[in-house]
Amino acid sequence: MSEKRTEISELGEFALIDHLNESIKIKNASTLKGIGDDAAVIDSGETVKVVTTDLLLEGVHFDLSYAPLHHVGFKAVAVNVSDVAAMNAIPKQITVSIALSNRFSVEAVDALYAGINAAAEHYGVDVIGGDTTASHSGLVISITAIGEAKKEQISYRSGAKVNDIVCVTGDLGAALVGLQILEREKQVFIANPDMKPQLENFTYVTGRQLKPDARMDIIHEMRDLEIVPSSMIDISDGLASELFHICKSSGVGVTIYEDKLPIDKQTFDTAVELGLDPITCVLNGGEDYELLFTIDQKDYEKLEKHPDIHFIGHVTNAEEGKYLVTKSGTTAQLKAQGWKHF
Amino acid sequence: MSEKRTEISELGEFALIDHLNESIKIKNASTLKGIGDDAAVIDSGETVKVVTTDLLLEGVHFDLSYAPLHHVGFKAVAVNVSDVAAMNAIPKQITVSIALSNRFSVEAVDALYAGINAAAEHYGVDVIGGDTTASHSGLVISITAIGEAKKEQISYRSGAKVNDIVCVTGDLGAALVGLQILEREKQVFIANPDMKPQLENFTYVTGRQLKPDARMDIIHEMRDLEIVPSSMIDISDGLASELFHICKSSGVGVTIYEDKLPIDKQTFDTAVELGLDPITCVLNGGEDYELLFTIDQKDYEKLEKHPDIHFIGHVTNAEEGKYLVTKSGTTAQLKAQGWKHF
Repeated sequence: MSEKRTEISELGEFALIDHLNESIKIKNASTLKGIGDDAAVIDSGETVKVVTTDLLLEGVHFDLSYAPLHHVGFKAVAVNVSDVAAMNAIPKQITVSIALSNRFSVEAVDALYAGINAAAEHYGVDVIGGDTTASHSGLVISITAIGEAKKEQISYRSGAKVNDIVCVTGDLGAALVGLQILEREKQVFIANPDMKPQLENFTYVTGRQLKPDARMDIIHEMRDLEIVPSSMIDISDGLASELFHICKSSGVGVTIYEDKLPIDKQTFDTAVELGLDPITCVLNGGEDYELLFTIDQKDYEKLEKHPDIHFIGHVTNAEEGKYLVTKSGTTAQLKAQGWKHF
Repeated sequence: MSEKRTEISELGEFALIDHLNESIKIKNASTLKGIGDDAAVIDSGETVKVVTTDLLLEGVHFDLSYAPLHHVGFKAVAVNVSDVAAMNAIPKQITVSIALSNRFSVEAVDALYAGINAAAEHYGVDVIGGDTTASHSGLVISITAIGEAKKEQISYRSGAKVNDIVCVTGDLGAALVGLQILEREKQVFIANPDMKPQLENFTYVTGRQLKPDARMDIIHEMRDLEIVPSSMIDISDGLASELFHICKSSGVGVTIYEDKLPIDKQTFDTAVELGLDPITCVLNGGEDYELLFTIDQKDYEKLEKHPDIHFIGHVTNAEEGKYLVTKSGTTAQLKAQGWKHF
């Protein structure tokens, strides 16, 4: 039709998404929040439903040469549950659509579904529908998750306030480092199929890449403690990138401290072995599926002793910018590279 | 892992889906209906939400050599809205995920989204989220639609009762005949690229294939007339196949009459030109996205004069079986071939 051809790469992925979203208008009163957070929020009487979806393609999001189908199924559910968690909601239902080529046997499909069902069991969600279809190329998985919360329990990206404390769960960088190890051993195997992959010293980091766990445990604990984070996001693209999202949505700045950033020993050692800077892995490694959130200072003492929540900094005025205070005490401007551009 | 390899083709697509569904257990009280109807139904206070999803792959579900991207986008929304309609619910929200290869320009993506947005406008739904990702092969579209209704308004496949009247909207077989024409002209074009496709006499049937319209008009009219169909399904796989679904879910039989089956003149003439039996096209042609439903006899006079609803038969006891009474008065057992095996 049009004479003009603009390459997607000229625009960039984020700009393309922004461009497409510009044309979207909200018409229904029940749509409380559309695009722009970890999940959409729709009115549901006393409660709200949150809705999130992910589309995963073989060769883009997972590599079956090292990812077992059981793990692929589990992870496909976990990444959606993580988005529901990031809204401070409880996941209840998922739909699962898959496209399969005839390369897959019934036993392979069973392994995939065993992982999906194990995750559904683990997170207490029901598989309520989906679509199963043929594919001429690889495996495609599309999952939509629906969660529930009271309206006042929802944590948007936009609620961070100056002086709030910045928290992260678990440890960071492991999934990226694990991916590098899996890719390295794959190349070794391709070069010499008689070589057995050396993975025994890397079980934590590879496990974090292959079978991440959404932090529903933290959501339930905070509910018990009657804490509603002022803002929250899950860490799928890297800590720095997610901090940028919260700062942009909330209209605030942030200062975080290098010595507070949580990193596992195996992640640190493996990063060094791979010639990567561990702190860069923590800041820009993706797919950890930990939670990044902010709390009001009054909630601090309720969480202070929590073994798996780390207080990494505080929220500032937007004009103060986004900074990392290094171990040596110098201050560096945060950059949101995102793990894809790593 | 397993030594055994069973081909999906050995099992068949429907058996595979049944096999996968066997492992699914429902845990949450808010899941009112899981797999097994046009959409799932989840509790939502005063109302219920219905949820349906479709995964569409280039080369499997659409062919960009003759389907304009605008139509592909529109149709992807319409087929999901049609599933919401088949539950007698009103669609409110959709999520849209797409995977794109670098073969697609920004202008091409814009055309696709223009179709998606036109359908969202047409059906009054909000695009509330989604995922945009890279693909190494063709275009993949995954849409999830969420609709709303009062609990007592939902029409399941399972509610047909003996002596109910069987109704279909619009006319049938056109989408299949349209597909045959598009495929024929594609082959002509491949054989001789200088030949211009001859489509001007086939605009109705090709339009039905390329840009079907979900029958929300009928749902709104029935709501105004206070009719709740005792059972309903949308015609995506062919009339006979959908009748089988209703009979199986409801535990009933059915008798339909050949002379009552609605077929457009262009569909009839084109089928004959293509050497196809028009009645076979009506019974087994898929993708018409019309509604098949049953009503109590007391509701008949409210719809009797409706220009676009056809009364094609009645519900019988299961033991009486599933029959077509031909124009010549003979009785033939219905077969559910489904259009894919056509």
